[in-house]
Amino acid sequence: MNNDRNWLVRENTFDPADLNHKETIFTIGNGYLCTRGALEETYPGNQRATFIHGVFDAAPIILTELANAPDWLPLTIHLNDERFALDRGTIESFERVLDLRTGVLTRRVRWRSPSDYVATMIFERFTSLADEHTLFLRCRVTPEFDGTLEIRAGLDARMDNRGMIHWRWMDQGERDGAVYLRAATLESKIETAYALRINVVEGAEIKRDFWDVENSPTLTTTLRAVPNEELIFEKYISVFTSRDLPRDQIEFAAMQRAPTMPSWEQAHEANANAWAQEWARSDVVIEGDDEAQLAIRFNLFQLLIAAPRHDDRVNIGAKTLSGFGYNGHCFWDTEIFMLPLFIYTAPHLAKNLLNYRFHNLPGAHRKAQTNGYEGAQFPWESAGGGDEVTPPFVPHFADPTKLVRIWPGEIEIHISADIAYAAYHYWRVTGDDEWLIERGAELILDTAKFWAARAEWSAEKQSYEYNNVIGPDENHDHVNNNFYTNRMAQSNLQTALQILALLEAREDARAQLTELIQKLDLSSERLEHWREVIEKIYLPLTDTKLIEQFEGYFKLRDVKMVELEPRDKSLQQVFGIEGANEIQGIKQPDVLMLLYLLRDRYSDEIVRENYEYYTPRTDVSFGSSLGPSIQAIIACEMGDIETAYDEFIRAARADLRDVRGNANDGIHAASAGGTWQAIVFGFAGLRVTENGWTVHPRLPKHWRRLAFRFFHRGEQEQVDLSQ
Amino acid sequence: MNNDRNWLVRENTFDPADLNHKETIFTIGNGYLCTRGALEETYPGNQRATFIHGVFDAAPIILTELANAPDWLPLTIHLNDERFALDRGTIESFERVLDLRTGVLTRRVRWRSPSDYVATMIFERFTSLADEHTLFLRCRVTPEFDGTLEIRAGLDARMDNRGMIHWRWMDQGERDGAVYLRAATLESKIETAYALRINVVEGAEIKRDFWDVENSPTLTTTLRAVPNEELIFEKYISVFTSRDLPRDQIEFAAMQRAPTMPSWEQAHEANANAWAQEWARSDVVIEGDDEAQLAIRFNLFQLLIAAPRHDDRVNIGAKTLSGFGYNGHCFWDTEIFMLPLFIYTAPHLAKNLLNYRFHNLPGAHRKAQTNGYEGAQFPWESAGGGDEVTPPFVPHFADPTKLVRIWPGEIEIHISADIAYAAYHYWRVTGDDEWLIERGAELILDTAKFWAARAEWSAEKQSYEYNNVIGPDENHDHVNNNFYTNRMAQSNLQTALQILALLEAREDARAQLTELIQKLDLSSERLEHWREVIEKIYLPLTDTKLIEQFEGYFKLRDVKMVELEPRDKSLQQVFGIEGANEIQGIKQPDVLMLLYLLRDRYSDEIVRENYEYYTPRTDVSFGSSLGPSIQAIIACEMGDIETAYDEFIRAARADLRDVRGNANDGIHAASAGGTWQAIVFGFAGLRVTENGWTVHPRLPKHWRRLAFRFFHRGEQEQVDLSQ
Repeated sequence: MNNDRNWLVRENTFDPADLNHKETIFTIGNGYLCTRGALEETYPGNQRATFIHGVFDAAPIILTELANAPDWLPLTIHLNDERFALDRGTIESFERVLDLRTGVLTRRVRWRSPSDYVATMIFERFTSLADEHTLFLRCRVTPEFDGTLEIRAGLDARMDNRGMIHWRWMDQGERDGAVYLRAATLESKIETAYALRINVVEGAEIKRDFWDVENSPTLTTTLRAVPNEELIFEKYISVFTSRDLPRDQIEFAAMQRAPTMPSWEQAHEANANAWAQEWARSDVVIEGDDEAQLAIRFNLFQLLIAAPRHDDRVNIGAKTLSGFGYNGHCFWDTEIFMLPLFIYTAPHLAKNLLNYRFHNLPGAHRKAQTNGYEGAQFPWESAGGGDEVTPPFVPHFADPTKLVRIWPGEIEIHISADIAYAAYHYWRVTGDDEWLIERGAELILDTAKFWAARAEWSAEKQSYEYNNVIGPDENHDHVNNNFYTNRMAQSNLQTALQILALLEAREDARAQLTELIQKLDLSSERLEHWREVIEKIYLPLTDTKLIEQFEGYFKLRDVKMVELEPRDKSLQQVFGIEGANEIQGIKQPDVLMLLYLLRDRYSDEIVRENYEYYTPRTDVSFGSSLGPSIQAIIACEMGDIETAYDEFIRAARADLRDVRGNANDGIHAASAGGTWQAIVFGFAGLRVTENGWTVHPRLPKHWRRLAFRFFHRGEQEQVDLSQ
Repeated sequence: MNNDRNWLVRENTFDPADLNHKETIFTIGNGYLCTRGALEETYPGNQRATFIHGVFDAAPIILTELANAPDWLPLTIHLNDERFALDRGTIESFERVLDLRTGVLTRRVRWRSPSDYVATMIFERFTSLADEHTLFLRCRVTPEFDGTLEIRAGLDARMDNRGMIHWRWMDQGERDGAVYLRAATLESKIETAYALRINVVEGAEIKRDFWDVENSPTLTTTLRAVPNEELIFEKYISVFTSRDLPRDQIEFAAMQRAPTMPSWEQAHEANANAWAQEWARSDVVIEGDDEAQLAIRFNLFQLLIAAPRHDDRVNIGAKTLSGFGYNGHCFWDTEIFMLPLFIYTAPHLAKNLLNYRFHNLPGAHRKAQTNGYEGAQFPWESAGGGDEVTPPFVPHFADPTKLVRIWPGEIEIHISADIAYAAYHYWRVTGDDEWLIERGAELILDTAKFWAARAEWSAEKQSYEYNNVIGPDENHDHVNNNFYTNRMAQSNLQTALQILALLEAREDARAQLTELIQKLDLSSERLEHWREVIEKIYLPLTDTKLIEQFEGYFKLRDVKMVELEPRDKSLQQVFGIEGANEIQGIKQPDVLMLLYLLRDRYSDEIVRENYEYYTPRTDVSFGSSLGPSIQAIIACEMGDIETAYDEFIRAARADLRDVRGNANDGIHAASAGGTWQAIVFGFAGLRVTENGWTVHPRLPKHWRRLAFRFFHRGEQEQVDLSQ
């Protein structure tokens, strides 16, 4: 490992204007929950939030959202009765550091109160990766005055999601010095129980009290303050929800854990050991580029803390568990952007995420049936129940009192093929035959069934079409024969037939095959129809090998990005929602996305032709955050390493530098996963084939070394490249 | 005055299923704020709310709403550490009484704790009408056990509007035993400061504490409990907002008031005296019908507590200050349904409400201009700023995930004429020339200007039309030439010319007239155009004197209410929103409403013809709550007293008996005002004419006596009728 600096996300000043962005950056978590980097003592305008996986609740317009869970952070310090807060008094020094190796967030502040009492306070917090129900907060205070230090440590169930309340108080109380708090979500009735214990490690106690205020139970401790004598105070929390245990057991479980929780040192060591294992699988070493080195680790960290470890009924939202953006809903972002990281470095986590889709097949059946189709049509946005939860309306970006109709929930159908693609990809890399037979095959066959049903025969074209859809480039809606959609549908059907053949060939899959044939009604007529759809799907190429993104795209007014410079907004903001529909400028790679996913089916010549056409028409700077990493990979393929690096670093910086100005809404998870793909599939050129794997390095010039590990068919492999 | 019983709204059992309805019924207030009848100690599912006039804040979809202000009620009692709450232990006896004479709400509970500690608790509260910034709560506890009684009395700034938060905590603390709490609305930045003081009147104090938990500052007191020795505890609150005083003075004002507040007895006496004056003006005595007697007083009480006393920049919302329905917005309900009560019994309050419209003329100009018209077009829904705040969408009643387009904000234009009508009505009854000259004339002239601009010339009909509107019957939208709208527009223009003539004739109005002519550009050409519109407005009567509600109404499918029996839902619920548009069944009187308002312009013959046609087609039972009182008045006119009584009592009971099942959303204020009109203009037949006033009594058979007072041109008059 290289030096510390490349593991530490740091800030040295406190800037209130950057408050919410930094809360996202300093998010910590353990795959069970994540907590934004809000200040313990609160700050005006902060967006404090803890999101627990799967704890969704109904909400108007957006249908459902991850409920901002009761807050475990509250801790206020009073220096001789003066409340410490960064919006009063004087900040003499300030430093905040997130150690990506262990997920410990540390803040060090020297603060002078309005009445001139000075103290240095060090706050440390982590959510244990070793025991995901336990959370730890430590505060070390060195006063420079005589008198008292009062510490108030509480829980708070009155949290809101950008103004919307999701919790109903149920009960609270104190037993043997530990405090519990129970609350339930209003509509989904998920219960949560927290237990809180405090521990004075250093300091003479003058007084202890329990403030039994509903929703905000608080333990207060007054310590004697002596100049330059450090006081150490710890706050331990345990959390359970009724998703973990029967609801009559969660309070007991939390309270039982509270007095038996290990000491800070023990807990910290167990957590650090757990993290060491994560990094042994996932770390990427880049020498010669400190920014890229820290950025990739930061992106990996944010994905690792959001990936469910012990729960395969939840998924990673587009903004992980780090912000209110997209309401905790998950998209194709998981399968196409994040999953490759897990497939290659943590297959057990990839399996959890794919199982989420498997468990939600009933929702996909409901959606298909509602629309008059057979098979599994996965929802564009999915949350707790597997049904479509794309909000039909959102407030207009320019005038929030107006609503804009949102179409992807109805017509952005490619996600079903993306999920099948990911299931196959998982199996191809891991060789997890058991999962393929038990679950993957059904995912692939059931989505294929949908695609065959959704295909429309055109007598005129003598082809099967997919009309009225949205492709990856969402600037163009209600289009016909989006090439990405059509080709991914075809691939889904092809893979299905391939999987059927594979199951037929395996003795150990016989029973499952029989069951699937019956359950999915895989008659020979149906399979014949699949073959016909595969053969006759509408997929035109021009003479020059150029692929038309959708029917009629080439007839749209041609707009290249360079013609719009200087520009500081998206195409939709420049041209309006309707206007952006009528030009060739696109929000993110669409044809190129397809060529990336099915790279081995297309010649270099085709890729180059399309790369050269679409790149100048793609809004990488203000379009989708999903774009840059894919552009980077294709640019690598084309040998255009400088462009590749520019796009890679744009993706890598998305959150750390708040490139798009919306990092306050949460981590750009797809961009984070894409950053890893750009390194591994782009710069290292990793390819897994039938016969093993290869790399085709094309490192940026200033990179001295690139090293990472991955699993291939159960074996951990190591790649270590230098110029 | 008759006996107590007819002043007391009472319940003798606690029914959790009726919780939110009873919170509305037991709303108390003082014209500055109102507080729903929630339990001090809270109850699961309660909708605790205090609404302070004018304290609006932005909200998604509904644009703006009255923010549920910080709660002054919290008071929990612990019997030997067991928390008193009605959802645990045993309720041995229960009684709740609202004394309409004084606005004091009293609850008496004998409660047995799970561990068998018994106490009788009496809670009393009132919001002083003598000093509207002061609120009082008293608790008398008679324990039947030895030990301790702990009382926790707090404030709570974390209130929400049906899940939506509007408040940001600013500061709190304790000085000299009094506690303050400051909070501000999130978007409108209105600040509020509360001060809290507690007072142990009877009981030996063991311990006092201040729990300084953010948002919920709480004073706790532990008293010695001795069997059958009554303990008395008082909680005094003072409230100011930045609408009352400069924002840097409100905390000081609240804290200064707290320690100087009078004793319970003094405050109670001052409040009772203030109420005695209200009732001397407004009471209605009905002998022979206890239900009607109590109901009219209840309805009057609810309007009196919502009417602003010292603020003419606020109005009374459709649900007063008693619930979340209609977001605190005001409608024509004020001018047409509530205002007559105030014009006749409390002209100073009527003037405040009309001044609200006068002050909001700039908003009415903005609305007219946005739509391409001159003059003043008042918003269908209005809140703090005078701009249109009708939500363009609301959740569908059958499927709240779907949105329904709401049109009145765009096309229910009759409100501008309703306001002009009310301004003229006020002057006609009060003779308040000064107000007419200074303000009323401008309201009437400026709305007339709008109506002239909005009229469309039809070459075919050789008439002026008002097309694409909604009349009072909102089941039919986008209609042309709604008779109500056209006739009220004509009346607005006629009144304008009449007022101009009146100003011209008065020496003391000369200056104001000159100013108005210039300000409103009242050129002779313009006035000529007004005369032409008045003359040629499209107002057809059939040969039989039947008035068509709007063009094409008679061609709709004829549906009478009796054909749908038995029925338990509205026409929109039976036929769907589109379906209800296509039938003759209507939601509330429309033609009859017009005939009521302009009664002296129409012959008995015309009224009878239309009464007989429209009555069977009007959904009085599940349609608008605005309907029954108007039906009652017209029925009186037609000598149909039994029907009149049925409709009157339906209106009178609307909230007390929760006739429509939605009283939990707040008081039906228009129905309350209509109830008074049905008595005074219906059963008593009061008419104010050029020469004085007359009554035409037609009392229900079982009424032995009907007596009330009203002001006519500054003189208080008395009506006392018997069979």
